[in-house]
Formats: sequence, C-alpha cells, structure tokens
Amino acid sequence: MASPIAFVSRTTEANEAEWIKTLSTALPHETILSIKMLTGEQKSQVEVAIVANPDPADIAQLTGLKWIHSLWAGVERLVAELGAASLPIVRLTDPELSRVMAEAVLAWTYYLQRDMPAYRQNQLNSVWQELEYRHPKDVTIGILGLGTLGAAAAARLRQAGFNIAGWSRSSKTLHGVETLCGDEGLTTLLKKSDILVCLVPLTADTRGLLNRDCLGIMKKNAAIINFARGAVIVADDLLAALDTGHLSHAVLDVFEEEPLSAQSPFWSHPKVTVLPHISAPTNRQTSASIVAANIENWRSTGELPATVDMTRGY
Amino acid sequence: MASPIAFVSRTTEANEAEWIKTLSTALPHETILSIKMLTGEQKSQVEVAIVANPDPADIAQLTGLKWIHSLWAGVERLVAELGAASLPIVRLTDPELSRVMAEAVLAWTYYLQRDMPAYRQNQLNSVWQELEYRHPKDVTIGILGLGTLGAAAAARLRQAGFNIAGWSRSSKTLHGVETLCGDEGLTTLLKKSDILVCLVPLTADTRGLLNRDCLGIMKKNAAIINFARGAVIVADDLLAALDTGHLSHAVLDVFEEEPLSAQSPFWSHPKVTVLPHISAPTNRQTSASIVAANIENWRSTGELPATVDMTRGY
Repeated sequence: MASPIAFVSRTTEANEAEWIKTLSTALPHETILSIKMLTGEQKSQVEVAIVANPDPADIAQLTGLKWIHSLWAGVERLVAELGAASLPIVRLTDPELSRVMAEAVLAWTYYLQRDMPAYRQNQLNSVWQELEYRHPKDVTIGILGLGTLGAAAAARLRQAGFNIAGWSRSSKTLHGVETLCGDEGLTTLLKKSDILVCLVPLTADTRGLLNRDCLGIMKKNAAIINFARGAVIVADDLLAALDTGHLSHAVLDVFEEEPLSAQSPFWSHPKVTVLPHISAPTNRQTSASIVAANIENWRSTGELPATVDMTRGY
Repeated sequence: MASPIAFVSRTTEANEAEWIKTLSTALPHETILSIKMLTGEQKSQVEVAIVANPDPADIAQLTGLKWIHSLWAGVERLVAELGAASLPIVRLTDPELSRVMAEAVLAWTYYLQRDMPAYRQNQLNSVWQELEYRHPKDVTIGILGLGTLGAAAAARLRQAGFNIAGWSRSSKTLHGVETLCGDEGLTTLLKKSDILVCLVPLTADTRGLLNRDCLGIMKKNAAIINFARGAVIVADDLLAALDTGHLSHAVLDVFEEEPLSAQSPFWSHPKVTVLPHISAPTNRQTSASIVAANIENWRSTGELPATVDMTRGY
C-alpha cells in the first residue's frame, strides 16, 4: 500500500477536517491524514504533502518528502520559508479560481468606472448630482501581472469593452491587449492607466513595487485595485497619494498583515474600500479535483505538473 | 423649403442649445429651432417636434404638428399629458442606451452579488469577515420587463453566468431566459428572484406594481434594483420590507419626485443605495443620429418608425 499523504496547514481544525474529507472523496485510493495524526515512522514515509500555509517545522519532519502540492495559488511564503529545501512545489492553478478572480476584477472595475464610491459619498451628504458617464472604451485598465489570473482578467475586461494594457516581467502576447514589459514598459503602463489592477505574484522584485515614485507617475485621479498581495504596494506611499488627491480611490483586498489591524488608517479612509481577502476564495470542490488529478497522474507516471521556479518565486 | 423643426423641452437653455447644435449637425438640411424662437406663423407650420420633457402648453401651440420625436425612452409623462391629442409619438430606442443600461444592470448586480454594501458596513465597523461567495449560477436575477432594455440586460447577465428569469405583460421568448407573464407568472418570478431588476415602463398597470403584497411574497433577503421609474414601487412598502429585514437591500436610481427631496428617508437608509437617475444617461451623439435617420426617412418616404401605443402607454 502507498504511503499516506500528509495534510499540513495552519488553519483551524474544523477547516482542516473539511479539506481532508473533500480530498479523500476526490482520492478514494489514498490515505490522507493530518500531520498531527501521523506516527514518527509514517512521517518518514510520506512522499507527498498537501499544504495550505504550512508551518515549515512540520514540513521538516517529513524526511522522505518528494514534493509538495499547495492549495494556494500564492506561494511566496512557502518559497521564502522552504527555499533552501528545494523540494518541487506545485501551486494551485484552478480555472474556477481564475474565473472568480476575473469576475472580481470586472465587478470592482465597474464599481470605479460607474463612480459608486463618489455616489456613496454624495448620498451621505444628500447630494443629487449626475457625474459624467465614462464609456468603457475611454477607460484604460492597466493590469500588473499577466499570469493565469491577469490573462483571465484581461479577457473579461476586454469583452466588457474596456481599453486594456498589461505588464509582465517577461514579454507576453495577449489577444486584444497592449502588452508591456521591463522598467520602461512599467512607466508606460502607469502613465496611461485610469484604473491599475494588481495581479502580480509577490516576489523579491515586486515587493514594494508600487512606491512613491511609481504612484507619482500615475495619471492624476487614477484608481488602484489590489487583488495580489499587500506588500506589492507601499502602504504609506499609497495613503499619501490618496491624501494629496493625486489618486482618487483604492480598492484593497490584501494587506501586509491579515486580518487588517484595527489601528490601520485604511479602515476609515474615505478613499479606500477595504475587503477581507475575498476577491477569489478557493473553491474546495474544484481545487480538490485538481489536486487529485495531479496526484493520480504522479502515482501512475511519476510525472509532476509545472512546479514553482524557486529562483523566480512563482 | 421645408418648415422648421421645433425643439421643445423643459431643460436649461445651455442644455437646449447643446442639443440643437448636435441635432443640426446630424440634420444639415433641416432648420431646428427652439420653440421660444419661433414666430406665430412658424409655429403653425411646424410638422415635427423633437421633445425632451416638453410643456404640453408649448406643444398645443404647434397647430400643424404631425408627429413628435421624444429624446427619452420613457414617455409616460408625455402620454399622460398629450393623451387626448393622439399625435403619433416616436420614443427613442438607442442601441447605445440599451448597452449602457445592460452594463448598469450587470454592474449593480455584481455590487449586490459580491456583497459590496455588506463589506462597506463591515469596513465602517472595522470588521474583517469573509462572507460566503455566491456563484452566479446560484443567483437568480428576476427581470421585470422584457422590452428592449430588459432583453439587453438579460443577455448581458446570462453571459456573466447568472440564472435569469424574466416577466413581461405579454408572453415572450428569449434565448436562455425563463420567461413568465401574467399575474401567476409575476408571483413565480417574485418568489424565485434573489435580485429583482425593475425595467418596466411606467403605465397605469405598473404604477404601484411592487406594493406590500408583492414585496411580501419575495424571497427572504432578496434585493431590488429599480432602474425603471420610481412610481413602480410603493416607497413606504419598500421601506417597511427593508426595515423588517425581509429584503436585504435596494438600489434606487429613480424616484417619484426627482431630484429626490432632501427629506426623503432613502438618503440615510443603511439598506438603500441612492443614485441620481444615472443608470443609462442619454448619449447626445448616438441619439441625435437616430432622430436624424428617422426624420430623414420620414421626409423622403412619409413613413414613421413604430410609434407609442397610447392605450398601452409605451
């Protein structure tokens, strides 16, 4: 019989039980157990671990581990903590996750294009005032990051008639999207975007990417949507750009510290919409099916899907 | 030379001037003048009037008038005020208006489906709490009214993956939409809708349509979007349904009295989003082109596009 699969996470016991149940249904021939339930001998036999924000000390106990399947799409913490171990890491790429993220990008793009924050403010002051309607073709959405999520968002926004530009680390081609790369490309993107949507992975290169200089070259009255990771934007620089009136609004779903501290100035800022990391929640059913297919394929062929490039960080 | 075309409205002088300028560019062989500029003799010669919320006393002065082209899609006031006159009325049906309305319906449907009002309330209280994500296929949007605007909205929502049901006075068939009609159909629609979108014209039949009884048979926690006319919903009954917690939210873009009175309880109601009649603003360029084509066709063939049924009211 094959060695057990270890489930390693820092989530609640109830949530872990739900995951193990769904994964076990998707993989009826495997034994999936929480690392907390494994004996010392079993720990040394585990070849594959399914993880969601695992404690690196737990991973270190799995001495025979061959590879790791993350249930998260964002693996910057895992890479930072396990970097030296150099085990192959597979991260979740779920088409349903891309669909929900693209939907979130369109929903909050409409939120900004149709001036919902400004109308909300007017309602608070009992002000009846029509604001000028902006046709989507006259609104440029700049997408930072053209990976699976960025490409899905670009396609959805394009279908809705928006003018799209996208930026990625390395040069890419996407149908109907002006693609840019490199430092010069970033400057071009920042200068032309009415709404900037952050969908880059957090890496050494993207940490603090949107600092005072970058925010400063953005269009006056532009807005930002951050659905990537909090640390991509320098929080104090963003607050300054909103306070001086250079930027009009920020929709923030991610923060350096989550849950967002009660003391954060973001909560009460009139130009900030705070969301509790809900743009694209993991779907337990679809992600369990994807993990199951990857593990079954590995059992029968010994092959892994594309793994995380530990140097690049995603 | 053809008799002048009269422009009759109750808008501001500046706005009237803008309209006449745009219409004159679209109709270079016609003379378009504000009724205020016409001599008594000219008034008797006018055969066609282009109107935007006209004073019926002005219309009555145009003794040789043959037909009226409204710049508005909603003509309930015109019909009520000119009813007896029985002149053919052409109302604006602009594909661009349908596109913007469908966009607005999708934008504010996302606003509700993605729980933006609830997250806003949580932000005010510094509460970090994920609400359960609802897949569009599990959210039923009920569309009241399947005319040009209702059909365009249904197609857009369907493309976004929502489950759609629609109701109209007379039986209709729309691709991918469950269509209902009559009193029984209305009850079915109200019972199944998670979000009810109002796009019916205001007529004797639809005035006060959504009263206490109708709101009462709606699903618990359902929400309403009114992009039709304020009088379709009985305001006090809606407030009661929100206050008892039966309905979760109302997005209101139209009101019996506009601008909305400063005393209206809607302004400060936590479960109401007030918009200043902006869901689908008239586009001066596209609507002037449509009016121009209709008038040119009438000059050359004597034929009119479909006119308003004065008994039905739209």
